[in-house]
Amino acid sequence: MKTYLDCIPCFIRQSLEATRMVTMDEAVHTQVMKEVLRYLQTLSFDNPPPVASKKVHAIVRKITKCHDPYKNVKKQSNIMAEKLYPQLKEMIRTSNDSLLTAIKLAIVGNAIDFGSVMRFNVNTMINDSLKKRIINTAYPRFKKVLNDAKTILYLADNAGEIFFDKLLLEEFAPRNKEITYVVKANPILNDATITDAKKAGIDSLAKVISADAGHTESSPGILLTTVSKEFLEHFNHDDLVIAKGQGNYESLNNVKREIFFLLLVKCPLVAQDMDAKVGDLIFRVQK
Amino acid sequence: MKTYLDCIPCFIRQSLEATRMVTMDEAVHTQVMKEVLRYLQTLSFDNPPPVASKKVHAIVRKITKCHDPYKNVKKQSNIMAEKLYPQLKEMIRTSNDSLLTAIKLAIVGNAIDFGSVMRFNVNTMINDSLKKRIINTAYPRFKKVLNDAKTILYLADNAGEIFFDKLLLEEFAPRNKEITYVVKANPILNDATITDAKKAGIDSLAKVISADAGHTESSPGILLTTVSKEFLEHFNHDDLVIAKGQGNYESLNNVKREIFFLLLVKCPLVAQDMDAKVGDLIFRVQK
Repeated sequence: MKTYLDCIPCFIRQSLEATRMVTMDEAVHTQVMKEVLRYLQTLSFDNPPPVASKKVHAIVRKITKCHDPYKNVKKQSNIMAEKLYPQLKEMIRTSNDSLLTAIKLAIVGNAIDFGSVMRFNVNTMINDSLKKRIINTAYPRFKKVLNDAKTILYLADNAGEIFFDKLLLEEFAPRNKEITYVVKANPILNDATITDAKKAGIDSLAKVISADAGHTESSPGILLTTVSKEFLEHFNHDDLVIAKGQGNYESLNNVKREIFFLLLVKCPLVAQDMDAKVGDLIFRVQK
Repeated sequence: MKTYLDCIPCFIRQSLEATRMVTMDEAVHTQVMKEVLRYLQTLSFDNPPPVASKKVHAIVRKITKCHDPYKNVKKQSNIMAEKLYPQLKEMIRTSNDSLLTAIKLAIVGNAIDFGSVMRFNVNTMINDSLKKRIINTAYPRFKKVLNDAKTILYLADNAGEIFFDKLLLEEFAPRNKEITYVVKANPILNDATITDAKKAGIDSLAKVISADAGHTESSPGILLTTVSKEFLEHFNHDDLVIAKGQGNYESLNNVKREIFFLLLVKCPLVAQDMDAKVGDLIFRVQK
């Protein structure tokens, strides 16, 4: 997905929000803002939004001298999601279709996002989501691909959300699949890193790798131009690829391989691109 | 009121919206955006937001080569408000306190605004407003000042809204006051100009002047640094000054003279500054 002019106010809002998480010093806020404004003048709209987001957050980190502005927010999200986990596990156990329920909950977990302007209440969404039908052709195709798959590549999105991912990974576990769970190498927004994945115990269910190992800056949404050889190997050859969140949709929706996107629509431009509405739970296959 | 860093995304959104009213050419949108970003780097936060807004819309006009991007929007607002007028007049006629009802409706008319990010439905607000009590000390003071006043200065805000102002001016008319109604000399956002005031027939109730006659660019919110001598004479000496809208609050809230502000809060920063909430109907006196 390309970057729109409408993304610009959002990048600015995001950079201000991230800076305020680090310091209340208005001189620092202003300095970040001015450098972000300068950078945005040079923006190439042909790139997907995560390219600009990566740069904008690099500016925040450089000026605030804080490696991880969202550290506290990520910690809180993990605590919150970990508490929800037993109740969600029970919902899956008692449901008619445990795989579909786990998929729905994995999508709902994508509500834990501190990048988008829209904030959603995960707790109210959990019950609502189970009542909703997901009307599309992705599920039959997903079941077939999953059944045939030996290898699964799962692109994670946010901290907290990873506990929701864990529920879905546990549905794969009895099927004896070789699962690779992909996080970011470096802090970017509230995206999950290896620390978060280990915190959720995902390393006992899957091999955990970072998409961009060896790089010093990550982007929210995997950019195939800056991924590790190991990641690319998996991405090109694994039988089933699942991508969580808007960032990955934005950066991978034009890539030529089958990807199952699981996300909550939080941005009007993503909504427009997907022919969906803000607030929609998306389970979609792209080929 | 000073300009906040949070105003920046709003200026950008506004400039993009105004540009899109003129042309669908994305190259023009991008050109406007880049020049607005360049300007915003030089922003002085000590000035009230209307200073920046004036400059941002001047950029839009220059690049789009359109003198009045909101022309159509203003026309539609006038048509809509003119249609509502008889019904509003009747509401005032049948109310217990016609002056207070007219004040409330003048505030509700401030919902007709194409500058703010929040959009309000005037029709639903009309009935709601009459049910609401306006809890403050402004009204008793207003009645006293109005009673004693020989001269009234009324600072208008938007097109469409001026029909709501007319209702309040008509409440003043039987009291034999010398009323001066102030609009903008040049198009800025959807702010009313002399054409709109005449369209609403306000020139038969008041002397209509523009605050910034002789200047080639207007600002949403009267800046005392760029007003005409005639305006300043009225502002300094008239017995009662009424100022409509957020823009005038932002530019005049620190001026040392008694002003009655009538506005709908549409921006979280104005809300914070006023210790109010977005959506609040404000009738407040400043001394």
